[in-house]
Amino acid sequence: VNDPRLTLSAVADLVGGRVRGDETLEVRGVAPLEEAGPTDLGLLADRRYLGRLPESGAGALLVSDDLVDAVPGDRSCVAVPDAHAALVPLLHRLYPRPAPEPGVHPTAVLGRGVEMGVDVVVGPYAVIEDGVSVGDRCTVGAHAVLGRDSRVGEGTVLHPHVVLYPRTLIGRRVIVHAGVRLGSDGFGYAVVDGALVKVPQVGRCVVEDDVEIGAGTCIDRGSIGETRVGAGTKLDNLVHVGHNVRLGPGCALAAQSGISGSVTIGAGVMMGGQAGLAGHLRIGNGVRVAGQSGVAGNLADGETVMGTPARDLKTFLRAYASLFRERNLGRRVRDLERGVSEAEGER
Amino acid sequence: VNDPRLTLSAVADLVGGRVRGDETLEVRGVAPLEEAGPTDLGLLADRRYLGRLPESGAGALLVSDDLVDAVPGDRSCVAVPDAHAALVPLLHRLYPRPAPEPGVHPTAVLGRGVEMGVDVVVGPYAVIEDGVSVGDRCTVGAHAVLGRDSRVGEGTVLHPHVVLYPRTLIGRRVIVHAGVRLGSDGFGYAVVDGALVKVPQVGRCVVEDDVEIGAGTCIDRGSIGETRVGAGTKLDNLVHVGHNVRLGPGCALAAQSGISGSVTIGAGVMMGGQAGLAGHLRIGNGVRVAGQSGVAGNLADGETVMGTPARDLKTFLRAYASLFRERNLGRRVRDLERGVSEAEGER
Amino acid sequence: VNDPRLTLSAVADLVGGRVRGDETLEVRGVAPLEEAGPTDLGLLADRRYLGRLPESGAGALLVSDDLVDAVPGDRSCVAVPDAHAALVPLLHRLYPRPAPEPGVHPTAVLGRGVEMGVDVVVGPYAVIEDGVSVGDRCTVGAHAVLGRDSRVGEGTVLHPHVVLYPRTLIGRRVIVHAGVRLGSDGFGYAVVDGALVKVPQVGRCVVEDDVEIGAGTCIDRGSIGETRVGAGTKLDNLVHVGHNVRLGPGCALAAQSGISGSVTIGAGVMMGGQAGLAGHLRIGNGVRVAGQSGVAGNLADGETVMGTPARDLKTFLRAYASLFRERNLGRRVRDLERGVSEAEGER
Repeated sequence: VNDPRLTLSAVADLVGGRVRGDETLEVRGVAPLEEAGPTDLGLLADRRYLGRLPESGAGALLVSDDLVDAVPGDRSCVAVPDAHAALVPLLHRLYPRPAPEPGVHPTAVLGRGVEMGVDVVVGPYAVIEDGVSVGDRCTVGAHAVLGRDSRVGEGTVLHPHVVLYPRTLIGRRVIVHAGVRLGSDGFGYAVVDGALVKVPQVGRCVVEDDVEIGAGTCIDRGSIGETRVGAGTKLDNLVHVGHNVRLGPGCALAAQSGISGSVTIGAGVMMGGQAGLAGHLRIGNGVRVAGQSGVAGNLADGETVMGTPARDLKTFLRAYASLFRERNLGRRVRDLERGVSEAEGER
Repeated sequence: VNDPRLTLSAVADLVGGRVRGDETLEVRGVAPLEEAGPTDLGLLADRRYLGRLPESGAGALLVSDDLVDAVPGDRSCVAVPDAHAALVPLLHRLYPRPAPEPGVHPTAVLGRGVEMGVDVVVGPYAVIEDGVSVGDRCTVGAHAVLGRDSRVGEGTVLHPHVVLYPRTLIGRRVIVHAGVRLGSDGFGYAVVDGALVKVPQVGRCVVEDDVEIGAGTCIDRGSIGETRVGAGTKLDNLVHVGHNVRLGPGCALAAQSGISGSVTIGAGVMMGGQAGLAGHLRIGNGVRVAGQSGVAGNLADGETVMGTPARDLKTFLRAYASLFRERNLGRRVRDLERGVSEAEGER
Repeated sequence: VNDPRLTLSAVADLVGGRVRGDETLEVRGVAPLEEAGPTDLGLLADRRYLGRLPESGAGALLVSDDLVDAVPGDRSCVAVPDAHAALVPLLHRLYPRPAPEPGVHPTAVLGRGVEMGVDVVVGPYAVIEDGVSVGDRCTVGAHAVLGRDSRVGEGTVLHPHVVLYPRTLIGRRVIVHAGVRLGSDGFGYAVVDGALVKVPQVGRCVVEDDVEIGAGTCIDRGSIGETRVGAGTKLDNLVHVGHNVRLGPGCALAAQSGISGSVTIGAGVMMGGQAGLAGHLRIGNGVRVAGQSGVAGNLADGETVMGTPARDLKTFLRAYASLFRERNLGRRVRDLERGVSEAEGER
């Protein structure tokens, strides 16, 4: 498909939805309600945005089923169970990404014994050191540095300015954003005669298949042994992962969250933005940590926590709310105590 | 002016102040009180630093009007309503920045259809991809990568190692510090059959005029539509801005603060260091968020908040202080309850 | 020593320990218990990992004295007072780092008046501007940018993608990890007619001997005067240090911690992950700040604090725990008050 233009009927077919209104109406893009124009599908996936609908110049709407009744009848729309999930096939069709021309830029510096797959793209000024292996159909962005003996799996994309320390292992279909550092030295020191003496960091960093790593994120390699990011796990921007951490599969770590060294994390764990985990913890499967929370103890499967130190989410929110509900509790208790002692004096 | 040397009288003229003491005394620099020498103006803009005055070797002082009476009479000084603001003209005069020689370094890689303004400086190993436009008098630092179809306005400075993802738009007189990533993919996934599936991020990142962006900061582009940073807004180091955020003009975001996706922020908003905003919020004009606070709900114009979840600043501080004021409240209330039930038993 | 293989007896000699079991057993590496194989020393330095011992395939153990009695008698081990500290000599011996070939890569760009010591390694695409001095035996990684008039002391390692702004001073034996920015502009603005006007940042950044700086960390230079990191201080990944901060010697700042401008910090201070200090504070020697804590006032020597705003650690933890200990305190106090007023009514 070369022409990124679809009728509402074709949109409905693509996303498994149904059209309400003019099936033949054509759209070329998808946009937030307040930015959408007459050739755009305005996105309505969240009740909070209903108020923006009257002003929207969208030619038609992509709307979640539970919101479709709130849309005025004169608006054509495609309704679908989950409008956000419907973006996946739709955006791929309407915004095809120009495939970069395969080839190694003449300015790239390649070491000895580099193995390069087919259809690899290597950008300007990339540095690929001795013994590195790059899989088929990988993209290595401008200025990326792939340290000695690193391995990158098939179909992986390293955006510009990524640095892999030596011996880093990256799986297939991984996306690594600009400025990510993988395999850096962990924060390991011994105190000798009162001074901090560096413990050599001799392990490595392993990133499994289908991981995505946001811009500026840093993952240390193992001090001894591995730091490992499980398959399908997604890390947002500016996340820190310490040495010897083991992140399970299918986790999602929001921006600026941080994991101290030697933490073991299960599958499907979610961390909110700026949340943190103390060192050496064991975090179970499906755990959820609210944004800015600080976890100081092990967590069992399925726990949801908040606060620093983190507690069960509902318990925390109830206790926190109680702080604001009553004023002057201390003075009032003192008044009661005084009343009691006076009453006793009277007896 | 070639010789960075000024009499106190000239300093006073420059900053709109008045001399107390020797008008003919010459200074060549400005320094903190504890580092200042005989040819320096020592800066005294904050009462907290008065204690450092006796030890200071400063030849003279630049002092705010409200502190001048606290300065011993034998110290020559220039008094001005706001000594900190007076630094602006004074430092420009005493520390003229060497203007880099215009020209494109021979190692820079330029794509097809690049438009380059007059007097542009392009550093070594910069990569400027197809269709990029760079305005007059811009500086593009060493190793900067300007992705396809990006546009950079007049007089903007990109420090070394800046990466612009494709189609990023940057206004005029913007300063972007080393290692900033603009237009990276947002953290957008749909859950399909239990796995996190990437939603293509097809929008762009727009930075308006007179913005400054600190080292290491990352701003994602819109998933669909824009992420936008308003004119004159300043971001400190290592800040995260998620996809589809709209930051108003004249905001100041301190280091390591973070804004989740789809937040709309008004004009003149201030965020302290390590503060965070949850997704999809609307934050009014002039809002202030204390450092490390986490905002979980919309905020009206002019609110000042603290805590996680954030509350009105004074309310939070009062409630927090109450936590520490009274000890053993729980036990004491239990004692009172026991007393009541015993008294009732006696009746 | 070319062959990284040691008998337990040789290990014991190297680390000042004693062998329990087979002194002639040979090991080639050190690994965490769950990753160790028959030629590895499994590390047992922390009681929390005792549970992993039965499953461990380690050929022998490196164990702290206080844990050796918990190790089954059929396991050969080297016992030592502090197994973690013993890693320092042991890993240096078993994992010798390949010394990079001295020499300046032909793609490096060197400015005028660059002074280069002996046995320096300069990687591909490094940019060393006019007037820079690089000490003997330094390593300058790929794509590093050393701004005009910077100085780097003997034996210092700059990993790939480090950026030094002009006039940065770095001492001897410093390790600077990938993507670190030193000497960037601080966050300094004056409010003029309601707009934020940049105060020129004309100071510099000074890093003393034996400092290590983690990946992605940013340290601003002084606005006027210096920002200084004391000898032997260690900074983890993604730390922010504002302008005019003075960090004493021997401090340890965990990942994502942040220090606002003009803070003065003593010797041996420790900050946990994501902790922050407000501006202009004085922090004494040996202070410890718990992770995620936010310090808003000066701290005397030896204080240990937690919370935001930070309080004495034990006081904070007691107050925080009290929040969760009693439920419905407010309602119960109201009940008591009602009882009192009814009782008074009866009188």
